[in-house]
Amino acid sequence: MFFASDNWAGAHPAINERLSKESTRFAAAYGTSDLDRSIEQRFNEIFEKEVAVFFVATGTAANSLSLASIARPGGLTFCHTEAHVIEDECGAPDFFSGMRMVGVEGPAGKMLPENLLERIARYPQDAVHHGRAAAVTMTQATEVGTIYTLDEIDTISKIAKDNGLPLHMDGARFANALVSLGCTPAEMTWKRGVDVLSFGGTKNGCWCAEAIVFFDPQLAKDFAFLRKRTAQLFSKSRFIAAQFEAYLKDDLWLGLASHANAMAERLRVGFGSLNSARLAWDTESNEVFAVLPKASAKAATEQGARFYDWLEPRDMPEKVGKDEALIRMVTSFATTEEDVDQFLSICASA
Amino acid sequence: MFFASDNWAGAHPAINERLSKESTRFAAAYGTSDLDRSIEQRFNEIFEKEVAVFFVATGTAANSLSLASIARPGGLTFCHTEAHVIEDECGAPDFFSGMRMVGVEGPAGKMLPENLLERIARYPQDAVHHGRAAAVTMTQATEVGTIYTLDEIDTISKIAKDNGLPLHMDGARFANALVSLGCTPAEMTWKRGVDVLSFGGTKNGCWCAEAIVFFDPQLAKDFAFLRKRTAQLFSKSRFIAAQFEAYLKDDLWLGLASHANAMAERLRVGFGSLNSARLAWDTESNEVFAVLPKASAKAATEQGARFYDWLEPRDMPEKVGKDEALIRMVTSFATTEEDVDQFLSICASA
Amino acid sequence: MFFASDNWAGAHPAINERLSKESTRFAAAYGTSDLDRSIEQRFNEIFEKEVAVFFVATGTAANSLSLASIARPGGLTFCHTEAHVIEDECGAPDFFSGMRMVGVEGPAGKMLPENLLERIARYPQDAVHHGRAAAVTMTQATEVGTIYTLDEIDTISKIAKDNGLPLHMDGARFANALVSLGCTPAEMTWKRGVDVLSFGGTKNGCWCAEAIVFFDPQLAKDFAFLRKRTAQLFSKSRFIAAQFEAYLKDDLWLGLASHANAMAERLRVGFGSLNSARLAWDTESNEVFAVLPKASAKAATEQGARFYDWLEPRDMPEKVGKDEALIRMVTSFATTEEDVDQFLSICASA
Amino acid sequence: MFFASDNWAGAHPAINERLSKESTRFAAAYGTSDLDRSIEQRFNEIFEKEVAVFFVATGTAANSLSLASIARPGGLTFCHTEAHVIEDECGAPDFFSGMRMVGVEGPAGKMLPENLLERIARYPQDAVHHGRAAAVTMTQATEVGTIYTLDEIDTISKIAKDNGLPLHMDGARFANALVSLGCTPAEMTWKRGVDVLSFGGTKNGCWCAEAIVFFDPQLAKDFAFLRKRTAQLFSKSRFIAAQFEAYLKDDLWLGLASHANAMAERLRVGFGSLNSARLAWDTESNEVFAVLPKASAKAATEQGARFYDWLEPRDMPEKVGKDEALIRMVTSFATTEEDVDQFLSICASA
Repeated sequence: MFFASDNWAGAHPAINERLSKESTRFAAAYGTSDLDRSIEQRFNEIFEKEVAVFFVATGTAANSLSLASIARPGGLTFCHTEAHVIEDECGAPDFFSGMRMVGVEGPAGKMLPENLLERIARYPQDAVHHGRAAAVTMTQATEVGTIYTLDEIDTISKIAKDNGLPLHMDGARFANALVSLGCTPAEMTWKRGVDVLSFGGTKNGCWCAEAIVFFDPQLAKDFAFLRKRTAQLFSKSRFIAAQFEAYLKDDLWLGLASHANAMAERLRVGFGSLNSARLAWDTESNEVFAVLPKASAKAATEQGARFYDWLEPRDMPEKVGKDEALIRMVTSFATTEEDVDQFLSICASA
Repeated sequence: MFFASDNWAGAHPAINERLSKESTRFAAAYGTSDLDRSIEQRFNEIFEKEVAVFFVATGTAANSLSLASIARPGGLTFCHTEAHVIEDECGAPDFFSGMRMVGVEGPAGKMLPENLLERIARYPQDAVHHGRAAAVTMTQATEVGTIYTLDEIDTISKIAKDNGLPLHMDGARFANALVSLGCTPAEMTWKRGVDVLSFGGTKNGCWCAEAIVFFDPQLAKDFAFLRKRTAQLFSKSRFIAAQFEAYLKDDLWLGLASHANAMAERLRVGFGSLNSARLAWDTESNEVFAVLPKASAKAATEQGARFYDWLEPRDMPEKVGKDEALIRMVTSFATTEEDVDQFLSICASA
Repeated sequence: MFFASDNWAGAHPAINERLSKESTRFAAAYGTSDLDRSIEQRFNEIFEKEVAVFFVATGTAANSLSLASIARPGGLTFCHTEAHVIEDECGAPDFFSGMRMVGVEGPAGKMLPENLLERIARYPQDAVHHGRAAAVTMTQATEVGTIYTLDEIDTISKIAKDNGLPLHMDGARFANALVSLGCTPAEMTWKRGVDVLSFGGTKNGCWCAEAIVFFDPQLAKDFAFLRKRTAQLFSKSRFIAAQFEAYLKDDLWLGLASHANAMAERLRVGFGSLNSARLAWDTESNEVFAVLPKASAKAATEQGARFYDWLEPRDMPEKVGKDEALIRMVTSFATTEEDVDQFLSICASA
Repeated sequence: MFFASDNWAGAHPAINERLSKESTRFAAAYGTSDLDRSIEQRFNEIFEKEVAVFFVATGTAANSLSLASIARPGGLTFCHTEAHVIEDECGAPDFFSGMRMVGVEGPAGKMLPENLLERIARYPQDAVHHGRAAAVTMTQATEVGTIYTLDEIDTISKIAKDNGLPLHMDGARFANALVSLGCTPAEMTWKRGVDVLSFGGTKNGCWCAEAIVFFDPQLAKDFAFLRKRTAQLFSKSRFIAAQFEAYLKDDLWLGLASHANAMAERLRVGFGSLNSARLAWDTESNEVFAVLPKASAKAATEQGARFYDWLEPRDMPEKVGKDEALIRMVTSFATTEEDVDQFLSICASA
């Protein structure tokens, strides 16, 4: 019953097998091998467009270097108030990009368009003292597991474009969002105006596979230097490429995400049938935020379940009671129905 | 015949097997798992001392964050003029540490003690304009494959200590140096006054395993934040730990390095028996720098050999002739005697 | 009728005269002259304590370097949501200190203690992902011209101390706050737990005189390097010292601030007698925020008055009407009663 | 006998008078006043071209922000090994620009063109590991008081242009160089290919007046943000403008520099008539580097003379003897013939 995070899971056998195969040969280092090249081609296919792709070590690196590549001196990046870039990356986005992250409020982990507009308006292009609006970043799926619909992406994107701001998408859980929406990668990104994407594979079955995808390769012209200067260029880069090869082959990645989402849905349905639990937000991908009796949470923990207590946000419609706990549960490719059912059964008994 | 770099090799089967095993289970993320902990213990044993160990993504990260952890505002770090930190890391050490790298000359990739002394003397502790001496870093094995003897480390270390400067060792090829000297890890490091070590596993059989070792854990007190802020904290950190577990088990790492060194020695001996070739520097670890007829280099390349042309340094005792090439050949755990012999045979024929 | 800002004023004659005198002689550069030394002594007297004093070029530099001197890797600085450091310095505090500014809400420009407590609690000392609480900065007088009482400073200071955080005070308008409270410099700073102070002279009659005062000289041990590295060390530093000498002589600075405050009070009283105007916040120093009919503001502008339209904050108790303008008026040592009365008379007529 | 540096002098009476006049009025802050604007026009006239001009607080800021404005990620800036940007600014150029300074050797403070070429060739535009050539900076007059001839500037400039690198000139002693060459400001700068200039007034009679001049205003498009973010935007900016107005009026600046140079020439001639002294480098502007008997230097010091001992450079053609001192003497607008003659007389007697 490991629901603490999808990054507690291991690696999928197919990915593991591909890594093993890769380990037996020699190849050029620093991202210049034939395999590195072929994966770049694979990304072109997946996104139906010529893109520029670069591997980095972590999701934090993907976000921070994405923002660095579109940064402007004195620039501000707008993100949701609870976004990973502002609250969970220890200032790496600021350090790498030289920009300040400006929180934009909105319910259920999503920036409210009117709030975004209002914030951008405070930082016009000649605002030497305040700093100037320079980029917008949105998280898909969000920190609380919700999903921007395609229309909502359009709206955010239009605001960004109207203000001359590039749009970044933090896709640490890109696949989970994609299968939830049931659209193509292109439809969820560049066709809606996304300029740069953090494309995460680690949480969905790789052990370390994060990429930055530039939909306008021109934006990537300095990227090789930005990456090296932040110590993010792997010498044996092809081992990242190998993971992506297996991950993207025969839609493995979509299958893994679908499974994770289904396990979250199973949790959601299970909680729905319990009188004692309710959901803090809609379950739209592979995260479930439940409000439970503390006794249930305790019982589950004692029987081996792992999950995180979550800080109650200010805008919770129904407050968390004194005897209740707000917990986050994350499912992954490796979550089993048995895990889910056991957890629910504990809650039902407690 | 892949002699371009030791990072062109894949990963050793034992390491690969350990990774496969790790992939099947769940475990806590971000370096907090039981496995991460047990590897820290393993480092204590290897270094015969309680150390603080942290994994990072690349050798550049290891060096840059090592220096960041001992940095002082307005500080200068002294390194050899051809050191990786000054010439091959695209300014990452400067960016992460805020310090300037100051080159110290010396033959065969090693800082000459009198030059180091002279440079340090130029930057006393109150030199607000010039900047102040803040750290010394030495590379073991060096960029040209030579080794500081234990006495030479003592000499450098004494200069550093006399001037109140912490000493860092770039051990991207630590194992190769260690087996070359035939001493213990402790004898090559903290027993000689090394304070922080970049401990590299990637070039010697791992696919991605770099660690920073602090011999005084107090130096590491801010390290967790420095690492996260530079996007170097792996979520599935335990896959690094797993590599190190296999790498350090039953002295595998020493065996791999011994093999690589032996292959370099075989090259050296082979070149010695050719009239047409000579060595630019002594072969002391797993790198061979040979001056060959251009015709030989060309013939080898045409038959599939891979190696790098090397920029002739100013202090070459015997100049490289017009019809000659200075090449760098690096051997690894995966280099075979057949590769070596085939290369030598081509040279003999050309 | 120049009410745009106190930095639109020139320089006081006494300061000007002292500068002229200074211009005729030779003296050691970079802050090492006898005059520089004697001013440091003067600060000791004023603050009744041995302090460390350093001059910098701008108020932004004073704040940014103050924070840099108390920064910790991955650190967060708590400030009011509208503080200069977060909204008006184009990211200089973040760039110089490497820290992120975290806004704390509170009415009338002052952090509400419970909000500060709540924010600090979110960032404990082991919060590698979120970043850790590292400093608190308060602005005295605030951005909207209000003043923290001595008790309020105590409260903020206690929260900081309880959490092990150093406390910085942005005193761009230090003198205005001081004469408003009627206490001594010591009572408003270190006796309440302030560790570092940005001591501004520019807005109060100097043309360029900003200092950083460390109440614990130990905090300043790296400061000379931080300052030089940010290009803030004047070669002819003694011309700053000369300004401070005249500024601090015979309580000139207190007299200038008293005058400015009195002019603001005259405005406040004048607005009080107008039916058409009201104040957005209490007038406690040299800033008046008035809500006027747009017609009045327009008439004043047409007759030569200068002031800034102010962005209506979210927490305005009484909203600004459609036909109203929220304006900021700042008085200075150079503001005359005639200017004030003329402005009020225009408003009365309009 | 103050020969320690030209920044030990005070301010010229005309400049002082202009400052006094400025102090009595109100004007818009942050560089937006009528006076700020009019000085920008004055720079256009002086340089016979529409330029973009920005004031900053120090010469270090002028250099560092000039380089920041032309920086590229992973970029390297080439400068003389003894240049101010690499040896005397505590890393500010690196910090502000994110670039590494690479020393280029050459006699008498000037980069040797062949050395510059060789260094640039080591860092081609795709050198992700080494970093890429990004800018060239030359100091005019140099750190040892010599002057690049117009032809020499052409040569350096051509190398820069051939390699696609912008050219910066550190003109901390611009006026001294200009009158030495007897050419126009345009001829010494943009007509030879200089793109950005640090234009110094402080060492030549202002108390604080440093400007950055962009000969292609397009290069300055982000400059306002770069400057604010480094805390270099003066609120009462017009006091810098006022100094420049007086400085540039009726060729005052050229007269002051001519005087300083003449005083250096007087020293040179004086030393020439002494058997006991010789010059380390030609005296071409307002700096004289003399090798004297230690006894003479000691006698002068005892009688009140101030100057700096200079570190003997490696390439001194004639070594400094055991009983000799290499000293630097800098003259300024405020140096008198009496000072010079008294110094020489002491040397003659000692």
